[in-house]
Amino acid sequence: MKLTPVAKMTLVDMAEGKVREAIVESGMKVGDVLPGELELAERLGVSRNVMREALSRLRMLGVLESRKRRGMVLKEPDLLDGLAKVIDLPVISKPVKQDLFELRLIIELGMAELVFDRKTDEVVAELEEIVAEEEKESGGGAVVAPEVEVDFHTQLFKMAGNGTLMRFQSLLGPFFDWKKQEGEIAKFHESGDGVTHRDIVEILKEGTKAEFLEAMQRHLRPHVEWINQKRCES
Amino acid sequence: MKLTPVAKMTLVDMAEGKVREAIVESGMKVGDVLPGELELAERLGVSRNVMREALSRLRMLGVLESRKRRGMVLKEPDLLDGLAKVIDLPVISKPVKQDLFELRLIIELGMAELVFDRKTDEVVAELEEIVAEEEKESGGGAVVAPEVEVDFHTQLFKMAGNGTLMRFQSLLGPFFDWKKQEGEIAKFHESGDGVTHRDIVEILKEGTKAEFLEAMQRHLRPHVEWINQKRCES
Repeated sequence: MKLTPVAKMTLVDMAEGKVREAIVESGMKVGDVLPGELELAERLGVSRNVMREALSRLRMLGVLESRKRRGMVLKEPDLLDGLAKVIDLPVISKPVKQDLFELRLIIELGMAELVFDRKTDEVVAELEEIVAEEEKESGGGAVVAPEVEVDFHTQLFKMAGNGTLMRFQSLLGPFFDWKKQEGEIAKFHESGDGVTHRDIVEILKEGTKAEFLEAMQRHLRPHVEWINQKRCES
Repeated sequence: MKLTPVAKMTLVDMAEGKVREAIVESGMKVGDVLPGELELAERLGVSRNVMREALSRLRMLGVLESRKRRGMVLKEPDLLDGLAKVIDLPVISKPVKQDLFELRLIIELGMAELVFDRKTDEVVAELEEIVAEEEKESGGGAVVAPEVEVDFHTQLFKMAGNGTLMRFQSLLGPFFDWKKQEGEIAKFHESGDGVTHRDIVEILKEGTKAEFLEAMQRHLRPHVEWINQKRCES
């Protein structure tokens, strides 16, 4: 349960909360029209300026949309828009960045079963092309350039077939300093038993689900060990 | 890359974007003070009302805080506050709810390695207490009451030791209609080979990491099969 101290709540916070509550309790649906700003202000007993600010926040979250002649209409927000607006700010602390790095690893390990269940020849062929491109550039080792590294893993996220997940991965993309990280992670690569992207593609094509799960665990192990060490240092 | 059609951008959207950009580009840190509302409005060439709305949005996201005598101060936002404000609204569509259900499963499968690495006798003992409580109420079967089911899995999230992850799980808590879902999932329980919460605790105490990973996969398999069926139906 998250409680905000009463003293820190502004009138705008409260008006915003009341409108959110009213939407939840009335069970309004996408396309339903909200009362006008003036009416809402009167019913909540706040000034029109306060009301405008509160509604502006809900518009930013993607919950409301102003439509000509119809007024404010309820819409389905993109769940991760709020996260997208804060994730790249320089105020995010190191422990939270570590949480996010870990979260990406957790998701990639956990989605392996779905990736395998939902693979199609077409997307596996795309993955194979990415690997061929990588091999041209790196010479076939386990450590590849960060840019192609990201392409490979983005394709795996695509294969899992979960839109919210793909959006989350794309938000993390520009967030990490991959180049610096891959350099640091390189020294843990022995613990990954050298499972390369090529190995992963081959297992997706010819192997079993159990083999794929194990290959992903091994492939990501250097990253797990790196983040565990980082956690201990801080 | 996410581009918003120019026509749909309001002055407030643009002012909000400009302030965000300025924060990123100037590399401001927590505790740094922003110029006042009036000065910002003048420099961006917008009205004071527009500026107030834009700043109000950043306050809502937890990026800014108004402090007496100091003005607007930069702070570290809680990354998931934006998500928290929309996740319980009745406008979230079924496919997105399915994405989230799947995401929780993915995370729970993927975090198994960390749970095992970071377990302590103390938290395992807590988990054991939860299981003892469950067994009193359910008679020891694989299908337990939704309330205790949630307690057990919440404890696993706690064991993974990732604050952002725990917050995410707590946001999802009230989101699903667990009672209805568990009823529907019950019929898939045969595919889980009857791995109970008790089995999981015993493996955490005496087993290997590989055994724990496999037990979690089996325990969650009925949920994976249920969501796969749901996806196919829709």
